[in-house]
Amino acid sequence: MTIKRRKITVVGAGFTGATTALMLAQKELGDVVLLDIPQLENPTKGKALDMFEASPVQGFDSKIIGTSNYEEAAGSDIVIITAGIARKPGMSRDDLVNTNAGIVKSVCENIVRYCPDSIVIILSNPVDAMTYAAFQSLGFPKNRVIGQSGVLDTARYCAFIAEELNVSVEDVRGFVLGGHGDDMVPLVRYSSVGGIPIETLIPAERIESIVQRTRVGGGEIVNLLGNGSAYYAPAASLVQMTEAILKDKKRIIPVIAYLEGEYGYDDLFLGVPALLGGDGIEKIFELELTAEEKAALDKSAESVRHVTKVVNV
Amino acid sequence: MTIKRRKITVVGAGFTGATTALMLAQKELGDVVLLDIPQLENPTKGKALDMFEASPVQGFDSKIIGTSNYEEAAGSDIVIITAGIARKPGMSRDDLVNTNAGIVKSVCENIVRYCPDSIVIILSNPVDAMTYAAFQSLGFPKNRVIGQSGVLDTARYCAFIAEELNVSVEDVRGFVLGGHGDDMVPLVRYSSVGGIPIETLIPAERIESIVQRTRVGGGEIVNLLGNGSAYYAPAASLVQMTEAILKDKKRIIPVIAYLEGEYGYDDLFLGVPALLGGDGIEKIFELELTAEEKAALDKSAESVRHVTKVVNV
Amino acid sequence: MTIKRRKITVVGAGFTGATTALMLAQKELGDVVLLDIPQLENPTKGKALDMFEASPVQGFDSKIIGTSNYEEAAGSDIVIITAGIARKPGMSRDDLVNTNAGIVKSVCENIVRYCPDSIVIILSNPVDAMTYAAFQSLGFPKNRVIGQSGVLDTARYCAFIAEELNVSVEDVRGFVLGGHGDDMVPLVRYSSVGGIPIETLIPAERIESIVQRTRVGGGEIVNLLGNGSAYYAPAASLVQMTEAILKDKKRIIPVIAYLEGEYGYDDLFLGVPALLGGDGIEKIFELELTAEEKAALDKSAESVRHVTKVVNV
Amino acid sequence: MTIKRRKITVVGAGFTGATTALMLAQKELGDVVLLDIPQLENPTKGKALDMFEASPVQGFDSKIIGTSNYEEAAGSDIVIITAGIARKPGMSRDDLVNTNAGIVKSVCENIVRYCPDSIVIILSNPVDAMTYAAFQSLGFPKNRVIGQSGVLDTARYCAFIAEELNVSVEDVRGFVLGGHGDDMVPLVRYSSVGGIPIETLIPAERIESIVQRTRVGGGEIVNLLGNGSAYYAPAASLVQMTEAILKDKKRIIPVIAYLEGEYGYDDLFLGVPALLGGDGIEKIFELELTAEEKAALDKSAESVRHVTKVVNV
Repeated sequence: MTIKRRKITVVGAGFTGATTALMLAQKELGDVVLLDIPQLENPTKGKALDMFEASPVQGFDSKIIGTSNYEEAAGSDIVIITAGIARKPGMSRDDLVNTNAGIVKSVCENIVRYCPDSIVIILSNPVDAMTYAAFQSLGFPKNRVIGQSGVLDTARYCAFIAEELNVSVEDVRGFVLGGHGDDMVPLVRYSSVGGIPIETLIPAERIESIVQRTRVGGGEIVNLLGNGSAYYAPAASLVQMTEAILKDKKRIIPVIAYLEGEYGYDDLFLGVPALLGGDGIEKIFELELTAEEKAALDKSAESVRHVTKVVNV
Repeated sequence: MTIKRRKITVVGAGFTGATTALMLAQKELGDVVLLDIPQLENPTKGKALDMFEASPVQGFDSKIIGTSNYEEAAGSDIVIITAGIARKPGMSRDDLVNTNAGIVKSVCENIVRYCPDSIVIILSNPVDAMTYAAFQSLGFPKNRVIGQSGVLDTARYCAFIAEELNVSVEDVRGFVLGGHGDDMVPLVRYSSVGGIPIETLIPAERIESIVQRTRVGGGEIVNLLGNGSAYYAPAASLVQMTEAILKDKKRIIPVIAYLEGEYGYDDLFLGVPALLGGDGIEKIFELELTAEEKAALDKSAESVRHVTKVVNV
Repeated sequence: MTIKRRKITVVGAGFTGATTALMLAQKELGDVVLLDIPQLENPTKGKALDMFEASPVQGFDSKIIGTSNYEEAAGSDIVIITAGIARKPGMSRDDLVNTNAGIVKSVCENIVRYCPDSIVIILSNPVDAMTYAAFQSLGFPKNRVIGQSGVLDTARYCAFIAEELNVSVEDVRGFVLGGHGDDMVPLVRYSSVGGIPIETLIPAERIESIVQRTRVGGGEIVNLLGNGSAYYAPAASLVQMTEAILKDKKRIIPVIAYLEGEYGYDDLFLGVPALLGGDGIEKIFELELTAEEKAALDKSAESVRHVTKVVNV
Repeated sequence: MTIKRRKITVVGAGFTGATTALMLAQKELGDVVLLDIPQLENPTKGKALDMFEASPVQGFDSKIIGTSNYEEAAGSDIVIITAGIARKPGMSRDDLVNTNAGIVKSVCENIVRYCPDSIVIILSNPVDAMTYAAFQSLGFPKNRVIGQSGVLDTARYCAFIAEELNVSVEDVRGFVLGGHGDDMVPLVRYSSVGGIPIETLIPAERIESIVQRTRVGGGEIVNLLGNGSAYYAPAASLVQMTEAILKDKKRIIPVIAYLEGEYGYDDLFLGVPALLGGDGIEKIFELELTAEEKAALDKSAESVRHVTKVVNV
């Protein structure tokens, strides 16, 4: 019996994909294939080589290769999809959805062919709909198709709480439900610092301000960068999910999961708390929500369903 | 300006002290002085040397020395006291308290002399009373005298919850208040898994069983070992507190702090949630308690006060 | 496809075995089974439980169980044998060898039954002979039977060099060949600090002193402890070898390997540099030795062969 | 006595500067100030915020801020200078040198004012000359002005060797002397894998090929990326140097140091092996070189002196 390294493919070698590849390698979670389109093969190779050249300094033994050839991805345990374009001036939202859905579907055809046993994590935007598109294309069981938004949204929410109180980020716990957009539902009731509910530590209007900042957290970065969107926190989020699966950690974290009746929704990908382990999504937790929270989640679900419909034609 | 390594002295080179020294070094938190009585100088040197010989394999650059000479501890940033004897057959509890209080006071005299600016963390048992004894001997401001019990009790509580649900320990949050004994007060209301209250995930009688097991967690290990008491989890707890201070992390964790009115108690060391940073205990959090919780805490405080009185004569 | 955690069994729950289990878990290399004889089942369970209770503090998700039942070890990827007794007053060396060989063989019978695909790492003393005994009992191919001595001996050698020069242990490289005993052969020519040969940095008589101290490094600890032998550095060494295999790191480190002609020796387990990866020992490197070095290695090999004969009857 | 976090300022928030900031924070080496010119203040803030939002996921408690205001950098323990422009078409090399020297000098004026006790690490290109320019502007003692090139060049060299032999990067040791350019001098004699000289493992022509590839390693990445230069390995190199200083690790690594007679050169910044600790460069090691190696180093030194002269007018 030979023990082999795990293998992880990251599709899309932009800032998020490349940063994800680096963080995966730093944690020695497996060998990493950074993959992009043939026109970008050289830069993709360059980024991978640069990372490999960092490995003697950082002491990690993950091989990182850059490629445009899906054969190199063959047999991956995990495939992470970060590919997709950003919305351009004059582009309708539906055009964006359709363009990225096309990209995601094309990626998925290759995954089906070369990585038929993999667990797939989707980041491409709009992520709830793209996860749906991937699910359709892949034909994989629902536990192996997972979208990322809640880890990132929760990370931002927790960072803002830690900043507000000047406390360690290690002690802040929060939870964001629903779609990845302005309708997301940070659960204030379930947020704590060192186990202490934040409602006893932070004035209500400051909490509301933090919640609102979380909802537009992606936009805040876009506005500051001026040319591009966030990639450090998104990459860290993807890596946390990958680690949970590859180490079978049984983490409880919010992910975009396929719902079949949970929370009253059907045939929808939406951000919910789930158990993430060696089988991908091993369980979905149904939280008891207040009427207000449920209404907010309904609104978010409706937004997601609306975008998903564009794909689901 | 020269940048110097931090310096940490661990008094008591038994299993807990030695394991603490190792974990401090592994994290490169500073150079470590493992100190015990002259009669045990050679074994203390042997343990320190064995750890130092592990450093090329594990890649840490903390110097670890074993000694019985407090001059070697001079200038330590942190002093951790693990010294003390275990209760022997035929020994009354008061005898134990007095014996260990004598040991702790003797250690503290040396700390005053050689490490007058240090922050002191006490583990010696009975820890609430020993922290009081140290506080008296040291004459340090209250923020620099800290007892350990809540991190350990909480760790056990969280481990049992993680086991019950088969989930990652990274996602379990709990909180144990009060003295380190059968009267400790695990706060079920403030316990969650991935942000989800455990009361919605675990049946009440199972929670009660976990709470009870936590209360006697130390005894469970003692009974299994047959000859000695727990040291891995206690050491890890001491290291977490040390790291919080040396990295000024501003962590919110339960520690044994000197109370002057908080929670209605005065002139008492008791386990409460606190902000731990570069100044030691930077803040104590007063949680709102239910009448039942307050009654339980009162009972625990009473037990602690009773033991402390033995010292405080 | 389900991704499972690796599984590692540590046979012998004494200080070395227990410390090894802790370090394996800290690195999340897999779930850990700490196994000892039925008479020690409770202490073994106690140690494992204590470690598990440290996991919420240190954030690792390795399950650690204590047991005396080999069924719990079933399917382990790696089995580490630390079992064996220490030499007692009045005991001949041959008696020690025979007693420990009996223990090792008994362990190996269970490994054959419950972990037939595992890679086995032996620490029990005298380790060269015990590795031979294990090889015979197991009937596994030679790449899957590995003794530990060179990592530890090299670690000591490097620690002493780092201490001599007051430099980081991360930059010291050394190499110790041959048996685990006073005849071991530290290769001074191949020793460097930050790539600089130590012969240009340390006077010859100091090097000789370091070499000699390395040779009796185990005894130095035994003498200091007064009651027992080293366990921190031995445990770290076992963990480095386990990590090299489980992560398929392809490390080049000195291990006790079965020789079939290499270095001119046949049918002998001896410490030589090897490539350690997912297949266990994937390659043995034959260094060019000076006549003096070869003579020293011959002497060491002869000692090992002598002890091995006691087993190999 | 209050224990404070260390503080590190990274000047230049391009890819290298930003990646450096991230890696510093991941290691919790201190709080990080990412600083760039006022025109880039928003993107700089955006990158810092994105990193901070990754901290709850990765569990690090370093504050990261983006700014263009040197007041925010006040009191930094370490300042890392990555600022500078890349050579543009039609630009002479002397123009590049003068432009970047102007940038570096302007940065240094602020360092003198706001961080007068700091240790300064320079990456800006051409780095040997820029380190000289910084030294002149800062007026700091020579131990506190350090250029980075050897860690990176050595990392590339080691990565190529690891790849050639398919072995762990952890076991490859090499050494690159001299200026950061095509004349750099990889010391093959001092290169080893697991302590084994590479000359006994790799054919001479393959070694020569690796040496040559190392010399043009920066260019290889530039050519692949098409638009920009390497940043992952450079950032990792800066972080290793920073860690060596802040943890006073006494590492022996190649750095660009001010020579006053060492190796026969005077008043020159050149890449040589040095001891890096809490005082910055605590010692320079003078290796014995063969005539051939010395000739190669002379040639490299001459190139560096030539470029430095452009600055040193």
